[in-house]
Amino acid sequence: MTDPQLLADDLLHFIRDRIPLARAMDLRLDHVARDSLALAAPLAPNVNDKGCAFGGSLASVMTLAGWALVELALQRRGEACDVFVGDSRVRYLEPVWSDFRAEARLAEEADFGTFFATLAERGKARIDVRCAVPGSGARPAATLEARFVAKRRAGAQ
Amino acid sequence: MTDPQLLADDLLHFIRDRIPLARAMDLRLDHVARDSLALAAPLAPNVNDKGCAFGGSLASVMTLAGWALVELALQRRGEACDVFVGDSRVRYLEPVWSDFRAEARLAEEADFGTFFATLAERGKARIDVRCAVPGSGARPAATLEARFVAKRRAGAQ
Repeated sequence: MTDPQLLADDLLHFIRDRIPLARAMDLRLDHVARDSLALAAPLAPNVNDKGCAFGGSLASVMTLAGWALVELALQRRGEACDVFVGDSRVRYLEPVWSDFRAEARLAEEADFGTFFATLAERGKARIDVRCAVPGSGARPAATLEARFVAKRRAGAQ
Repeated sequence: MTDPQLLADDLLHFIRDRIPLARAMDLRLDHVARDSLALAAPLAPNVNDKGCAFGGSLASVMTLAGWALVELALQRRGEACDVFVGDSRVRYLEPVWSDFRAEARLAEEADFGTFFATLAERGKARIDVRCAVPGSGARPAATLEARFVAKRRAGAQ
C-alpha cells in the first residue's frame, strides 16, 4: 500500500470526509508525483460576488495541496505525524474565471532528505512548500508560500 | 441608509447569498464599528481532521472580515467600487478548538483619509488591513496582514 496514486486517492477521501469545507469546495485530486501534487476544484462552489474564484477558496485549495504533498511524503515513509500549516503568504495575481487547480511542490531550498533527518532526530521538522494556481498566461493567477510543521504522533515510533 | 449596522447586515446577507463558501462556513456578523469589523463562524462546518479549525477557514474568515471593513467604509461614503484582496500573510499561532471570530481593523500606518483621497484622484486605491482570531491567552490564534485594492466601477462617479 505504498503506491503513490492509491495513497493519494485515500488521502483525498480522508480530506473530503473529515474537512467539511473541502467537500463544500468539491476538491478533487488532479495529479500526484513524488515531488508534486495538484488538487482541482470547480468554479461554481468556489465563486465570489464578482463571478470569479473566491480568494479564500484559492488560499484553501493551495494550502491543502501543500499539506497533502507533505502528508503523502510522510505516509510513503511510514511516518505517523500530524502536519500543521504555519506561516503562509498568498499572492493574488489575476482573477480566476473557470474551474481551477493548485499545484504544490517543495520550495527550491527545501528537500525531503533534510526534513526526514530532522524528524528522525527531533520528532519534529518543518519544510517550505510553494503552490501555484495557473493563470491565463505564463504568470500564475495565485501563489502560496507556506511552511508546514510535522510532529510525530504520541506513541508513534 | 448609512447606518453602519444596517449596511453591515445587508453586506453579510449579500456575502452569504453570493459566495457559497461563506454560507458553507456559516459566517455571521459579530460586530461593526467605524474602524473595526468582526465576523463569527461556528467550529462544526469549519473543522479539520484534527478537530480544530481548518486553516483555510481561518484564512477565509479573516480575509472576508478585512474585505467587509473596506467595502463598508466605501459604501458609507457612497463609493461604488470593486474591492479585491491582494497580497496577504497568514500566521497560524495556535489551534482553535471552538467557535471563533475574526476582527479586522486598518494597519497602524493606514488611514481611510489617504485611501479616499487617492481613490478620488486615481479611481483606484489600496489599503492595508490587519485581522486577528483571538486565542486562548493574550496572543491571537491566527493573524492576517492583507492589502486590499478598490477600483471604481465603470460608470460610477
